[in-house]
Amino acid sequence: MPGNIMDYDTVALDDERKALVIIDQTKLPGRVEILSLRRQEDIHRAIYLLQVRGAPAIGVAAAIGVYLAALGIDSDDYSVFYSEFRKAKDYLATARPTAVNLFWALDRMEKTVTDCKGMPVAEIKTRLRARAIAIRDEDVRACRAIGEYGLSLIKDGDGILTHCNAGQLGTVKYGTALAPMHLGREKGYAFKVFAGETRPLLQGARLSSFELVSDGIDTTVICDNMASQVMKNGWVQAVFVGCDRVAANGDACNKIGTSGVAILAKYYGVPFYVCAPMSTIDMSIKRGEDIVIEERPENEVTEMWYRERMVPPGVKIYNPAFDVTENALISAIVTEYGIARPPYSESLRKIFMAIEL
Amino acid sequence: MPGNIMDYDTVALDDERKALVIIDQTKLPGRVEILSLRRQEDIHRAIYLLQVRGAPAIGVAAAIGVYLAALGIDSDDYSVFYSEFRKAKDYLATARPTAVNLFWALDRMEKTVTDCKGMPVAEIKTRLRARAIAIRDEDVRACRAIGEYGLSLIKDGDGILTHCNAGQLGTVKYGTALAPMHLGREKGYAFKVFAGETRPLLQGARLSSFELVSDGIDTTVICDNMASQVMKNGWVQAVFVGCDRVAANGDACNKIGTSGVAILAKYYGVPFYVCAPMSTIDMSIKRGEDIVIEERPENEVTEMWYRERMVPPGVKIYNPAFDVTENALISAIVTEYGIARPPYSESLRKIFMAIEL
Repeated sequence: MPGNIMDYDTVALDDERKALVIIDQTKLPGRVEILSLRRQEDIHRAIYLLQVRGAPAIGVAAAIGVYLAALGIDSDDYSVFYSEFRKAKDYLATARPTAVNLFWALDRMEKTVTDCKGMPVAEIKTRLRARAIAIRDEDVRACRAIGEYGLSLIKDGDGILTHCNAGQLGTVKYGTALAPMHLGREKGYAFKVFAGETRPLLQGARLSSFELVSDGIDTTVICDNMASQVMKNGWVQAVFVGCDRVAANGDACNKIGTSGVAILAKYYGVPFYVCAPMSTIDMSIKRGEDIVIEERPENEVTEMWYRERMVPPGVKIYNPAFDVTENALISAIVTEYGIARPPYSESLRKIFMAIEL
Repeated sequence: MPGNIMDYDTVALDDERKALVIIDQTKLPGRVEILSLRRQEDIHRAIYLLQVRGAPAIGVAAAIGVYLAALGIDSDDYSVFYSEFRKAKDYLATARPTAVNLFWALDRMEKTVTDCKGMPVAEIKTRLRARAIAIRDEDVRACRAIGEYGLSLIKDGDGILTHCNAGQLGTVKYGTALAPMHLGREKGYAFKVFAGETRPLLQGARLSSFELVSDGIDTTVICDNMASQVMKNGWVQAVFVGCDRVAANGDACNKIGTSGVAILAKYYGVPFYVCAPMSTIDMSIKRGEDIVIEERPENEVTEMWYRERMVPPGVKIYNPAFDVTENALISAIVTEYGIARPPYSESLRKIFMAIEL
């Protein structure tokens, strides 16, 4: 893959090969490797292993993935087709327990099937393809809109701190938390971005820095524990992070470490913004405490990326993939339909009502 | 080295071989490698490369190191001897700019020389040896006393969070922040210790976990960015950290990331204790802002410990080795002469006055 990573889609459908095409994020930044996945097992594995990652990208990958599963169902009988589709859907839904977009995208795909009950199976397959492409296109539009709204919160020359990768590599295009930086760059703004490396899997060091520098943006990687010092130095005018799921009260679940950054931002008086496509906002979940937090394998902490195991035998490991940032720590939630301010139980509900009108 | 690491001194003098003997901390926990260092360049290098590390251990290593330099000065003339001694002292002082113990120990060694002006050089060398051993013995006694005072702040079964390694491996014996855990273990207490891995050099994952598990203490390693979640879970009843330098107002300079943990502890209502031998308290420095913060090489962040470089080209790196925790975030400073409470400008001065009486 030559040139600017921004010129490519992170997740795509290859109709000819009947494959989900992704940039393997576990190989970045060392190698840009494009995976063309045809088997459901490989798609499930790609989501579980974070070869495709970021809530929006996972949603699009799952939509394309379950469409490919539908395409492979060899029956003209609706009830057989639907039953097979459900199996494929339920299988993909087990790949990551926390990202609501996964379930959201799969549910929308299923709704297309049930809405089309009575139609020929071939027609349903065509509509599933259209739905998957629509989910992808919506993601691109949503990210662009989030970028525009986010940009209104900062000014040329600002220092921005971000955590994990809520960038183009975690979506189809632009990203969520990094969309304001990419759009700002298009307009000629000069931001200074500080990317927390994001242990254990280093999405900040490997991915955010990669796409930001690829786009010509001034980027500094820090270890996660340096965020306090960077804020104390006065180098940060705003924090932008993405999210995997937002509860109805505005509590936001995102990559482990996010809540710590939010507490630091509050302490240093730096505004803390969560960028959330509406697909990540789960009004059925009242509070952050109700969100199930995925715990991941010990070896991500003890040895992944390392030359040798870095923790001696006999030591326990705690490896939660996410944490929940309390709504009181969040200055605003930036959606594709506008900027929600506290109290979020009201502002988020209003946005949903406006969409449904 | 067999058995419990607690049975060994981290820093020692080998009179026969005229060598400084240390456990190479950059090889832990994979290999327990004992280094026997005779040349000044090797001793300087060992301090710079963190083969010996931890403010108290650095002080003792420097005292033994400069004694060995003195031993090698081949002159019976005081002024030649003193001038050579000064060169050796100034050279070792450049190994780490932040740890006050380094300068403190070297100054005490120099004072032995100037106090003995007029004595035969051979006698001065004997006294320098005695002074170095005294500095070592004081460290052991100070750590044990800090452990006893620290233990009075916690109770059996508590969860304790620590950052970096302020343990036996950073001192001669017991450690500072980990001394309460080691002494508690002797008394049969069951603490649950959470060790932040401490990026970039992983002193928590590699060293604290190693010595705690070696001593039979329940130990869990977390990535630094998980501290917020661990506190939110209610698993932490106290934070204990060491320090490299404390200003007269109680601002404490310690391993990068410490100030972030302190801010989290404040937010979650967890007491935050700094364990500081009097040798790390620098009454000549008024406030934390006046402490020079060492910045270290980029490759510690981008590639050390890694199979390959984890950060793409063109990305900047910020790698401060320390940060300063404001006195308002510190519940108490635990010294070998007692527990100082806010306001520290008064309580620390009182302790110093009591010692001098």
